[in-house]
Amino acid sequence: MNWGEEAQARLSRIAACSTTAEGVSRLPFSGEHAAALDHIRGWMVRAGLTPEMTASGTLVGRSAKGEGPTLILGSHQDSVPHGGRYDGIMGVLLPCLALEKMQLDGRQPAVPVEVVAFADEEGVRFPTALIGARALAGTLDPAALDLTDADGISIAEAMAGFGGSPDQLSTLQRRPEDVLGFVEVHIEQGPVLETEGLALGTVTGICGIERNAIVFTGETGHAGTMPMAGRKDALVAAADFISGINRLAKEQGEVRATVGTLSLAPGAVNAIPKRVELVLELRAVDDAQRLSMHDAARALAGQSSAAMGCGLSFERTYSQTAVLCDPRLQARVANAVSATQGGTGFDLPSGATHDASAMSDLCPVAMMFVRCRGGVSHRPDEFVTDADMALAVDALDHLLAGF
Amino acid sequence: MNWGEEAQARLSRIAACSTTAEGVSRLPFSGEHAAALDHIRGWMVRAGLTPEMTASGTLVGRSAKGEGPTLILGSHQDSVPHGGRYDGIMGVLLPCLALEKMQLDGRQPAVPVEVVAFADEEGVRFPTALIGARALAGTLDPAALDLTDADGISIAEAMAGFGGSPDQLSTLQRRPEDVLGFVEVHIEQGPVLETEGLALGTVTGICGIERNAIVFTGETGHAGTMPMAGRKDALVAAADFISGINRLAKEQGEVRATVGTLSLAPGAVNAIPKRVELVLELRAVDDAQRLSMHDAARALAGQSSAAMGCGLSFERTYSQTAVLCDPRLQARVANAVSATQGGTGFDLPSGATHDASAMSDLCPVAMMFVRCRGGVSHRPDEFVTDADMALAVDALDHLLAGF
Repeated sequence: MNWGEEAQARLSRIAACSTTAEGVSRLPFSGEHAAALDHIRGWMVRAGLTPEMTASGTLVGRSAKGEGPTLILGSHQDSVPHGGRYDGIMGVLLPCLALEKMQLDGRQPAVPVEVVAFADEEGVRFPTALIGARALAGTLDPAALDLTDADGISIAEAMAGFGGSPDQLSTLQRRPEDVLGFVEVHIEQGPVLETEGLALGTVTGICGIERNAIVFTGETGHAGTMPMAGRKDALVAAADFISGINRLAKEQGEVRATVGTLSLAPGAVNAIPKRVELVLELRAVDDAQRLSMHDAARALAGQSSAAMGCGLSFERTYSQTAVLCDPRLQARVANAVSATQGGTGFDLPSGATHDASAMSDLCPVAMMFVRCRGGVSHRPDEFVTDADMALAVDALDHLLAGF
Repeated sequence: MNWGEEAQARLSRIAACSTTAEGVSRLPFSGEHAAALDHIRGWMVRAGLTPEMTASGTLVGRSAKGEGPTLILGSHQDSVPHGGRYDGIMGVLLPCLALEKMQLDGRQPAVPVEVVAFADEEGVRFPTALIGARALAGTLDPAALDLTDADGISIAEAMAGFGGSPDQLSTLQRRPEDVLGFVEVHIEQGPVLETEGLALGTVTGICGIERNAIVFTGETGHAGTMPMAGRKDALVAAADFISGINRLAKEQGEVRATVGTLSLAPGAVNAIPKRVELVLELRAVDDAQRLSMHDAARALAGQSSAAMGCGLSFERTYSQTAVLCDPRLQARVANAVSATQGGTGFDLPSGATHDASAMSDLCPVAMMFVRCRGGVSHRPDEFVTDADMALAVDALDHLLAGF
């Protein structure tokens, strides 16, 4: 059996569970979700697992093996609109394939195992995310169930219509002593492994994120009649800041600093900009490094605005601390990766949030990243090779056999 | 007679010829334009001039004095929406007041004089401007008469409805030998005279203008998963450019460089910008200096884009050469300014376009700038003091008497 080819074929088939022909568009609690679960039930059964739809819409496949705490593996079934074939769903399939492979070889995992397919991680349909993982961890805010999608359907209604039981979610909460940990396999969604020439990497942690709303306030004036010397040009202040923070983050090397939105007023070709609003996002797996970069950004914005005689508003509007992977569980994943890659391991942070973030409130978490072509994700041309997925199956086999 | 107070009072009254209560909003060939002409006819008659509405909608007031080429003074009657009380119209009133003053004193100009009130300089109603001045200079493109306003009314229709004769415009063209020159008094619309502590200044020329559409093209990517080192961030390239060109223009001192619009894509807080479009406007009274800054900007954009691995498109989309004031006519204005200001003259360029730009195709032109509060123009709070306007009347008296 070529497990890489098998993985590719199954992902290709389940990709058809999509509202769009171009790319995969699969929202939670939708008809496409239901169709996808039919595929996943089949994967679980072939892996020797017993699938069960739970109250939250998470499909859980349990191994027969008896007593003791359980190792949970898995990821999410949903996609962004026009997303790829691998993000999330690959992390449901590959553990199933590893278990199927072990079964065919007459071996079994050293511990009780579950594979989960969470309904929602992307947060595209509803203005929240990670519903399934939060239900397991007992961190789901019941008020979130009233949040509605674009058609006015609440999470509770969608979940109930899908066969779930929104009023039973509290029964899903696991006891920490019943769970060994959560291991998530996911495409990297970045170019690091490709640059390193490696198929697999071990995640050290999931970056903390903060967003800062920054406003530079100057004075407008006529582009012809206002001499350069007296200008209070808010765009020049913002440009100095953007150049500077990019340079600082490059030098620092660990923190990622991005200005992704910028708007200015009045916005005429012959008027000096009087107001620029932008958002600076900082991400780092080390919260202290991120907070240090925050302080540096604040100081830099102060200098840039003062140099142009502009006013400044700098407000942190969102903050989420980093999630560090559990050292022992991470070491197990790293050993499996290294053993599979001829002794070459590689550690990297995750810049994006994953189900493992929410699961960390319940139990030790670890993640394995699989190389994706060009670092591309959330697009129809997202791609992972057969060979890389075969290696990931081998690594999971190694992990499960030796636990 | 306090000519400053008189000027202020008359400008206050004519400001009521406006579609808005806040600020002056007066479009060409409108009911407000017609009402304003009733005021201006009165000013002309009190100045000893004979007013006549011409085919283009320009009101021309001619002095009785007989033979020889004529000195034309004046400016435009129209305003931007919610504009001020001085822009344009002050340049019609003050020559009338100077002539009225001379008449009261029993003196008269040394040469035949006309005062003109052009219908349209701002180009707000129609997508062209300077119609009246171009008709005199014979540079009005007949095709422009078909341009329409927001209601689909063409210039020709609006002009005819106002009592003009769009088919007779060619008869308005003056012979250069019949015109001594054109002198325009205008508020500075910038802060230079205020900074210098002077009421009046002499304009050296009207800046040439060019606009450059610049596009930086990088690659988007996830703000968390893409390391700083490999990024092709179009906004960082643009920011480096904006910072750099501002620094260059400040050092150079004569050229004004402004980026007034900027848009980026995809424009999400967690996505690296892949495309930034902006417009760089350059203005200078010395075309060679402007062209040299254009070359420097192009080189700088090349460096900024290359440093970030971005592509670049740099296209000059608009270009208008500078208009230099006539040295002899400018010297006459400068003498009048200096004589009126206790021996203190001051020369400065005009960063904005004026009727004098179009008149320069017909005859020697010169301009006198009057200080405005805070450099503010095109706003309801545009303001010139009584005292400064009184000085301008004195300077015009000096100019006309000694011509």
